[in-house]
Amino acid sequence: MTAAPDRWPLMPTLCPDDRRDLKLRAMQVIIDTIREHDVSPGTRLPSTRSLSRRLGISRNTAIAAIEAMAEQGVVEIKNRSGCYVASDPLAPARPPNRLKPAMPSPARDWVRRFSVVLPEASPRPPTAEFDFTYGQFDPTLFPTNPWRECERRALAVTEIEAWARDTGDADDPMLVDYLISTMLARQGIRARPEEIIVTLGGQQGRFLVAQLLAGQGTTTGYENPGMAETRQVLELMPTRALSLPMDDDGAIAGPEMAACDTIFLTPGHQCPTTAVMSLDRRGELLDCAARAGTIVVEDTFEVELLPDPLPALHGLDRTGGVIHIGSMSKLIAPGLRMGYVVAPAEVTRQLRALRRVMHRHPPGNNQRALALFLAHGHYGAFLRRAYRVLGERSDRMCAALALHLPEMQVRHKRGASTFWMTLPAPVPARELVGRAASQNLSVRPSVHFVDAQKGSTAHLQLSVSNLPAERIEEGVKRLSRVLRGLL
Amino acid sequence: MTAAPDRWPLMPTLCPDDRRDLKLRAMQVIIDTIREHDVSPGTRLPSTRSLSRRLGISRNTAIAAIEAMAEQGVVEIKNRSGCYVASDPLAPARPPNRLKPAMPSPARDWVRRFSVVLPEASPRPPTAEFDFTYGQFDPTLFPTNPWRECERRALAVTEIEAWARDTGDADDPMLVDYLISTMLARQGIRARPEEIIVTLGGQQGRFLVAQLLAGQGTTTGYENPGMAETRQVLELMPTRALSLPMDDDGAIAGPEMAACDTIFLTPGHQCPTTAVMSLDRRGELLDCAARAGTIVVEDTFEVELLPDPLPALHGLDRTGGVIHIGSMSKLIAPGLRMGYVVAPAEVTRQLRALRRVMHRHPPGNNQRALALFLAHGHYGAFLRRAYRVLGERSDRMCAALALHLPEMQVRHKRGASTFWMTLPAPVPARELVGRAASQNLSVRPSVHFVDAQKGSTAHLQLSVSNLPAERIEEGVKRLSRVLRGLL
Repeated sequence: MTAAPDRWPLMPTLCPDDRRDLKLRAMQVIIDTIREHDVSPGTRLPSTRSLSRRLGISRNTAIAAIEAMAEQGVVEIKNRSGCYVASDPLAPARPPNRLKPAMPSPARDWVRRFSVVLPEASPRPPTAEFDFTYGQFDPTLFPTNPWRECERRALAVTEIEAWARDTGDADDPMLVDYLISTMLARQGIRARPEEIIVTLGGQQGRFLVAQLLAGQGTTTGYENPGMAETRQVLELMPTRALSLPMDDDGAIAGPEMAACDTIFLTPGHQCPTTAVMSLDRRGELLDCAARAGTIVVEDTFEVELLPDPLPALHGLDRTGGVIHIGSMSKLIAPGLRMGYVVAPAEVTRQLRALRRVMHRHPPGNNQRALALFLAHGHYGAFLRRAYRVLGERSDRMCAALALHLPEMQVRHKRGASTFWMTLPAPVPARELVGRAASQNLSVRPSVHFVDAQKGSTAHLQLSVSNLPAERIEEGVKRLSRVLRGLL
Repeated sequence: MTAAPDRWPLMPTLCPDDRRDLKLRAMQVIIDTIREHDVSPGTRLPSTRSLSRRLGISRNTAIAAIEAMAEQGVVEIKNRSGCYVASDPLAPARPPNRLKPAMPSPARDWVRRFSVVLPEASPRPPTAEFDFTYGQFDPTLFPTNPWRECERRALAVTEIEAWARDTGDADDPMLVDYLISTMLARQGIRARPEEIIVTLGGQQGRFLVAQLLAGQGTTTGYENPGMAETRQVLELMPTRALSLPMDDDGAIAGPEMAACDTIFLTPGHQCPTTAVMSLDRRGELLDCAARAGTIVVEDTFEVELLPDPLPALHGLDRTGGVIHIGSMSKLIAPGLRMGYVVAPAEVTRQLRALRRVMHRHPPGNNQRALALFLAHGHYGAFLRRAYRVLGERSDRMCAALALHLPEMQVRHKRGASTFWMTLPAPVPARELVGRAASQNLSVRPSVHFVDAQKGSTAHLQLSVSNLPAERIEEGVKRLSRVLRGLL
């Protein structure tokens, strides 16, 4: 069919170590060969027998790859005469021949051009065998079958019509309804749909609220110790960030709080000390904020599984001065990125306008899948299972700590996965993490949670969210060896 | 079992007009009744016969609802004795009895607290029967079965492990690989994985790049006429925004461009004029930018289906001074929110750091589903189908315009869905849109694309992306009536 030289011998063989789908990899090398060597339309492909020999795949896999490529329009199968490279109206751009030689590439000073320079994420360490860090994904808890069912339902033709359009700044009304009747009801929050915005997880909630309220000339309070993520977001904003004094009940309703335009708190289950703020303190705090005109941003950390929850500040407040940030995906699968913010409608409208300029809205298919997950009650069933599993792990953890580290003071709430351990004396954080790693342990020292700790840690956050029950005692034993070596 | 008064008579009946799943609705009213009337654990539920009568559902639906609630742990089925409200360790928060009376709610001046006040989105008009606006979702083009297959594959146990964790600032490496070998290859772009960041659609690409490069003291150029979204993003930033002069070939490589730190362009297919920038102009522009040290941000608009595409500026550039913004979901389903940015690795790392603070990363399940969609060649097959369907619609559109509006000058490129129509004289935009709506037509007048048009329009953007072929001629006929009434 063509007089051009045969390019097929240039086709690479498949790497035998690659664990991906063989058909996909066979398609890829054939398509790459066509593109890279500019194989003309109309060129005959090698026979499936020859492809199977050359690529080291079965004849059936070769046939399946050819059929899939035909469906995609990359090749054409002609009866009786074989398979040919298709002429493609959507062929890739060809580089022009008449390009001038490259200009010398200037050494660009990119940093000078950046409006802000953020610290880059350090590469993640490989997951340790005994992982005591919080919020990692535990595949044994993921509700695979119900989630699959809900994604499948969200792809019914009528559902697609509901979520597939660019909705501008609107969210899935079904998801909003079910957030109100499940997530918010459990926390004693009553809200109208116009008071809710769906987010890509708790982090987006913090970012949007800070973007709106932590502007030039404002003062914003944060807990110390507190969530590292809150401090990071506030550092990006032009606000003056103020560290709030804390006691065993959480943040103190005092003059520092009253001096702030906005405060970020985790009253439901304090991060990282695990304090559940008492009802009295909640009342004092709301009174103090109302008198001072301080807006309270109530962030959540591990509240889903606390039994007999107290009503959220948002549910107790009568002045419209509380903004509530929730996360749905932390517990199910952080990769899904799902959360919400509850705020007065006037605030929610501005959060929507901000989100609209940033990226419109969270993906519609996931919003609908989550709505169905709540509607069919799978979330409730999932929570019950997680409560049971994490409860068992926490019991083991308590027993192991009592046995192997009895001298440590540890705070923990039934239902949560984290423990906050106070060391008898500060130890160098970096050395602790390094020695732990050499024992195949991951831990988060308090430098993550406290301002200006100067490299030493007096506390550890330990979580069993990603540690199977049978590995807990060995993990605690190893931790005790590490700590005794340092203390 | 309990001496409390019977609350079941308080259960509301189902609204017969509601089209949602009957089982779900039945579950919802039962659960709501338990919660709202504080029905105690251990209370016996009405029999399924009585539920079916009361709720107006079949006995089978009542049984299915009870079984689903039992699985969720809301009720317990006891053999032979019926179904009881379960005692729930995760029961909702109960409002405390000792709450003080509400403080008088202060009239909050929220606007004073906002760091920025954005215009709120106006409510979307109902979709017109003859919708000539661009970028709306067309369910007849959505690749329902292949997308379903890919979401299903992404939920295989091994795949879940790959995407479900919080990846910090990383993207799905499989998606990045396939973006390189498909999307980018087609546009003549060669990129390394560390030069790519996955976004929630083109809008997030624009926002992140502007956030990084359009800071205080900078000058940023934009096309006029050009994308409304670009101007909106730049208005949010502290940069000085400069309108660039244009001719029939797109933006002009002149002193205005050279005066900018950064320029935002749509050279592949100009929005809204549909000009495809010639190779000569691309060369001039890159030379001019390289000499002046201007960073070129190449945004894309309707380029996927242009036959024989020219290489993107990013593919022609040899100086590392071009940032490329792509969107994947516009064509497939805007609600999915999928796109990417290609930039030098140093820039990409900062874009990742910004995105990390904002919301971590786009949802992992969608990234993996899209990777599989590309890997299995479904995207290629989808593009071929869209090319055929939109080609047929465009042919009809051309014929209808020639017949019913022959005096209008219209620009259009084969493969694209939009037409740019020049009116013989400006007409009031608001009146045009209103009269069009009364004929059941949606159109976008040039006020959306041009600075300071003072309420009159000299051009219309017309798209057939959401208009079935058989409705096009009638739509154009109606449009011609509207225009003749105004001109």
